[in-house]
Amino acid sequence: MGGDGAPFVIVEGVNLALGKSNPDVKFILYGDNSIDSCLKLIDEKFKDRFTVIKTPSVDLKNMKPSLAIRMARDSSMGMAIRAVKDGRADGCVSAGNTGAYMALAKIILKMLPGIERPAIATLIPKRNGDVVMLDLGANADCSYSNLIDFAILGEALASVAFGKDSPKVGLLNIGSEQIKGNLIVQETYKRLKEDNILKNFVGFIEGDEIFKTDLDVVVTDGFSGNIALKVTEGTVKFLIEQVKKSFNTNLFTKLAYLLIRGAFKKNLGFLNPSNHNGAMLIGLNGVVVKSHGGTDAIGFSNAILSAIGVIEREFLKKVSDKIESRNY
Amino acid sequence: MGGDGAPFVIVEGVNLALGKSNPDVKFILYGDNSIDSCLKLIDEKFKDRFTVIKTPSVDLKNMKPSLAIRMARDSSMGMAIRAVKDGRADGCVSAGNTGAYMALAKIILKMLPGIERPAIATLIPKRNGDVVMLDLGANADCSYSNLIDFAILGEALASVAFGKDSPKVGLLNIGSEQIKGNLIVQETYKRLKEDNILKNFVGFIEGDEIFKTDLDVVVTDGFSGNIALKVTEGTVKFLIEQVKKSFNTNLFTKLAYLLIRGAFKKNLGFLNPSNHNGAMLIGLNGVVVKSHGGTDAIGFSNAILSAIGVIEREFLKKVSDKIESRNY
Repeated sequence: MGGDGAPFVIVEGVNLALGKSNPDVKFILYGDNSIDSCLKLIDEKFKDRFTVIKTPSVDLKNMKPSLAIRMARDSSMGMAIRAVKDGRADGCVSAGNTGAYMALAKIILKMLPGIERPAIATLIPKRNGDVVMLDLGANADCSYSNLIDFAILGEALASVAFGKDSPKVGLLNIGSEQIKGNLIVQETYKRLKEDNILKNFVGFIEGDEIFKTDLDVVVTDGFSGNIALKVTEGTVKFLIEQVKKSFNTNLFTKLAYLLIRGAFKKNLGFLNPSNHNGAMLIGLNGVVVKSHGGTDAIGFSNAILSAIGVIEREFLKKVSDKIESRNY
Repeated sequence: MGGDGAPFVIVEGVNLALGKSNPDVKFILYGDNSIDSCLKLIDEKFKDRFTVIKTPSVDLKNMKPSLAIRMARDSSMGMAIRAVKDGRADGCVSAGNTGAYMALAKIILKMLPGIERPAIATLIPKRNGDVVMLDLGANADCSYSNLIDFAILGEALASVAFGKDSPKVGLLNIGSEQIKGNLIVQETYKRLKEDNILKNFVGFIEGDEIFKTDLDVVVTDGFSGNIALKVTEGTVKFLIEQVKKSFNTNLFTKLAYLLIRGAFKKNLGFLNPSNHNGAMLIGLNGVVVKSHGGTDAIGFSNAILSAIGVIEREFLKKVSDKIESRNY
């Protein structure tokens, strides 16, 4: 029931994800009565792969987190998280209020042993594939031990997302020399190096190196990470506007657009946010994926497919093993 | 003598700035003997508008700040800053080592009364003109009173750069609600609001709002600010690569480039770093402008012209008046 287009967009996204996933993947849809009229969007051939559980109507959108959490326990969101807790589901996906989702997930699922706080992680497109980045805004104030947790979680996520045994992990900073940066990244760097916590820690990286070819994980606090993500989005939006304006100048530039659009689609298609939908609320004892609230059905299906991917590749088990074996 | 192309690029930039500035603007060039052969780059008609002062040869490039500071006192950089201190110059411009430049300027010129630490400020292109952003990396750890100083400095810089009496100042955060963000931005917000320090404080802004039409100043700490700037640069570079790749696909896409390049130049010309060269080291008791080390002559002339602009519009006096009249 969460997100701008719910429940239509959500159910349409489920239909797309049903078509793209393994036939043994099954769905439980939590929603109020308004969901009934959307069910016709799901192809008849998938009728044995989903069930619907009716929930009370609770509108969490634009609600303050503190209130949303109280209200949300019996909402579709709360019930979906409880299904994960109770083992009836292997993971949950929602396009609803992020603050409420994160708080509820933390209360209901609890943290993975040894991890103090959840982080928001997503894949960012770069020159050659994607890079995992976290935290993107869950923790505005972080200690060095939070950043170490995020590094471990990011390494595990990259290893299942990219199938790499030793993903390259960088710590975001304002210079690559060891003396650069604030006190927290300096302490984090020292611990990660000396205690040999990661398989492949490449040290500090600067903001323009996120898009480098050979980096797999960018670790940062939720303040800088959120700013980095939003600045990237703002820059892309601004440049696309200027490019569109250019193509709309006159008949010749409109012709130019017809000639270039195929190549643009191929080389710039990753800019479509639907292709990169689905952030993980990571560090929790369960797979919890957050879709953009304003997503379309393709975007929502991609958020579902990310959740399926990390479940199938046993992300939670890999993180837990890593945490148990850590030498500090 | 600083920067990759010195002294040629610097002298060439001086020649361009001589052509574009008021005839009563005069230049003192500090450099070693290698400068002699470059002087022919300056047009004969400007011969009464510049003098050359010879300095020892000191190569500060890639030197650690602590060593560079000791070595630089008698370098072209150190002597140029002293000329400002002694009143022989109204401002100085260098493309040399940033750390050394900032440290020397702080030692020689001292801070403006009431300002604790210098910040790096620059103009960032946005939808409708530019926006002043600071700090871009001088201070990795900031207190709320540092951020308040930066807000005052940014307001004064925007008022002289944009000719606005009440520039709109925003504080960079990870959400626009008052409860969002880390402890330092929350405290800064509270003081700026309650103590009514700025003429037009618009509150928190998010990373994607930097490029908004009606914002004049973005205030942030040097850690987030540097990351935001570098991420913007990295995003722009990555997108330009993908666009170039698209135009290089085949004969049709190459034709498309011929048809669109005029409009691109008009709408995307601001992406050329030469057009936006010249960061201010702000908060010092003197006008100190830093050029990119890798700049070309046009870029260096733009750094000089920014320095002339803030001098002519009495930036230092405006900041000092503001600081004296502040009600806290």
